[in-house]
Amino acid sequence: MITVRDIWSDIEAIRAQAPLVHNITNYVVMNTTANALLSIGASPVMAHALDEVEEMAGLASALVINIGTLSGPWIEAMFKAAGAARRKGIPIVLDPVGAGATGLRTDTARRLMENAHPTIIRGNGSEILALGEAKGETKGVDSRHGAEAALDAARAVSRKHGCVVSVSGAVDVIVGGDRTILVANGHPMMPRVTGLGCTATALTGAFAAVNPSPLYAAAHAMAVMGIAGEIAAEKAMGPGSFQMHFLDALFVLCEDDIGSRLKIESV
Amino acid sequence: MITVRDIWSDIEAIRAQAPLVHNITNYVVMNTTANALLSIGASPVMAHALDEVEEMAGLASALVINIGTLSGPWIEAMFKAAGAARRKGIPIVLDPVGAGATGLRTDTARRLMENAHPTIIRGNGSEILALGEAKGETKGVDSRHGAEAALDAARAVSRKHGCVVSVSGAVDVIVGGDRTILVANGHPMMPRVTGLGCTATALTGAFAAVNPSPLYAAAHAMAVMGIAGEIAAEKAMGPGSFQMHFLDALFVLCEDDIGSRLKIESV
Amino acid sequence: MITVRDIWSDIEAIRAQAPLVHNITNYVVMNTTANALLSIGASPVMAHALDEVEEMAGLASALVINIGTLSGPWIEAMFKAAGAARRKGIPIVLDPVGAGATGLRTDTARRLMENAHPTIIRGNGSEILALGEAKGETKGVDSRHGAEAALDAARAVSRKHGCVVSVSGAVDVIVGGDRTILVANGHPMMPRVTGLGCTATALTGAFAAVNPSPLYAAAHAMAVMGIAGEIAAEKAMGPGSFQMHFLDALFVLCEDDIGSRLKIESV
Repeated sequence: MITVRDIWSDIEAIRAQAPLVHNITNYVVMNTTANALLSIGASPVMAHALDEVEEMAGLASALVINIGTLSGPWIEAMFKAAGAARRKGIPIVLDPVGAGATGLRTDTARRLMENAHPTIIRGNGSEILALGEAKGETKGVDSRHGAEAALDAARAVSRKHGCVVSVSGAVDVIVGGDRTILVANGHPMMPRVTGLGCTATALTGAFAAVNPSPLYAAAHAMAVMGIAGEIAAEKAMGPGSFQMHFLDALFVLCEDDIGSRLKIESV
Repeated sequence: MITVRDIWSDIEAIRAQAPLVHNITNYVVMNTTANALLSIGASPVMAHALDEVEEMAGLASALVINIGTLSGPWIEAMFKAAGAARRKGIPIVLDPVGAGATGLRTDTARRLMENAHPTIIRGNGSEILALGEAKGETKGVDSRHGAEAALDAARAVSRKHGCVVSVSGAVDVIVGGDRTILVANGHPMMPRVTGLGCTATALTGAFAAVNPSPLYAAAHAMAVMGIAGEIAAEKAMGPGSFQMHFLDALFVLCEDDIGSRLKIESV
Repeated sequence: MITVRDIWSDIEAIRAQAPLVHNITNYVVMNTTANALLSIGASPVMAHALDEVEEMAGLASALVINIGTLSGPWIEAMFKAAGAARRKGIPIVLDPVGAGATGLRTDTARRLMENAHPTIIRGNGSEILALGEAKGETKGVDSRHGAEAALDAARAVSRKHGCVVSVSGAVDVIVGGDRTILVANGHPMMPRVTGLGCTATALTGAFAAVNPSPLYAAAHAMAVMGIAGEIAAEKAMGPGSFQMHFLDALFVLCEDDIGSRLKIESV
């Protein structure tokens, strides 16, 4: 069972080591995910040029690939960076933003899933469902699916690709092979702030940089996201102040915050 | 005459329907305009790749095109997305950021105005003046024009292109054919926050997604911008806190806020 | 010796003239550096297209080049813009973000240093050290160097390229030929907010737009950065609120704030 101490040890390690997390991510969230990584104690770098992604991934302790604002040259860079990450043996976290909404996103997410060998795939229920479905079955960006269906899809994707799948939602579901962890922390205002899903992905990269278990890294990251979100929501007057308090909460987070709020279970 | 209830009905519709607003916009404001759309209750998506803009526009309820950080492939994507939006019959809102400052911006704004058939053009006075002038007369980015001249230009552009023209300023001017609406809400700190003009454009897209009248959609959006700006300014200590309070104000806005502050007239 | 009045005169000039600062900068910081320029009183514009950078630089009072998220077409645009800036005689400020981390960054920074003739180079210690070293000696992004070594490198770069070199750190070092200015303002939370180094570079551009001495412009900018940082830190609960209070502080900064806090010396 995951204990408060397990999560806290990861945060201490991130703060002590300041692992370099190489992000190839979307334009919308670059600033806020860099700030979230800095607030938790990691060192973010954003680099997408074909001419440097392999070298940068070679310096990093984790690689985060996020397809939120795709275009051709960026896709090529994602594969090159993933190749360098695999050769170095660092974890790769993939966020298939918008998979299921357009063919480009679904196809790119699938190709990355199959050929870039992500250690962890982190998305929302619709995205994971789109990736779990057979080709041609994908639904629009606005489709809404039950947690149950997402859990089945997460298990299928995890088994097929041998990776951890982390699905955010009212209850987050983290699946690694036969094991499933549920995190019930979080707040309904979180989806009203752009890029908090992408932030969860970036933080998953930071935890994976210090924790050799991708399953625990992913679960710890979602717990910390949810707890920081709860702290922020108690102070926020809306999504603007939520974003600010969220970054502050990551920065000042202490073991007691986790101890008093953690809602996690293995099923 | 526009009533408080008219505006409030649009906000209720946005909050109920969460219309998908497809933005091809500039790097500077992607985060803040996405957050403004989320705060008012809409669903933003940013997508610019040639390979997906038609499909994404086909899923959306409004298309927002903003030329703030132009480059070749993005211009091509803007035309493709506009074509898909026209075929689907959803409103297109164009923000000609920097028209009049460089030839690339003026020419691209003109080409979009003529060939992408925007439903609403939303800019500041200098930009609308640049678009209203005959080719070759455009002035620099720093030119300052009176509201009078901008009104004449807005009327000329509206007549020529059969679209609504929404001009932000100390008093916002919204022109549709022979009709003109003035909105006197707002605060002098608003131009000191980057991207609030672009935010006005994005919100105009959200209102146009739920209101079949482009004229009213544009006017309601400017009224809500101005009122949220007034609420934010009362709490802000500067442009940093203004941006935060502005997003919060959009989120908690109620009918009474509009009723007690609205300054709108048809002329 | 630099006096409070010298710095205040520059701020008054920026607020009165609102100089247009043309930025070719990285995706991560575009929003926050634009906001910092607006808060201090300048007019930011971000433009990177090959088709317009010369025209835009020709309208501007300063050009800021920041290599934080490089790619091929942007590098070409940086050289074109720098050429236009030189022809117009406006100052060029270069931020060699990540020089020393990857070959692409180090090489691009060196090429810009040698061929774009920056008036001021503003970076952190690691970056300036990488630029001061002979080719092939550069170290990783995580290398930590003493202030002493950075000072030597700054002096070498300044002499070799005939430019001012401004190095941020616990104590900022600004070198112009044989003259060295130290600024001891600032706060340890500043490196925990993404893009504050880039903000220092952007503000340096604003000061250089109004002050004919690149050495003083660079020193004044670093003093104002540090003082605004101290004010922000007294109000902040973490990096999220720090960023907000920092922008507010730039906006409301008064001569007394500088007078009561300035820690500057020529050595």
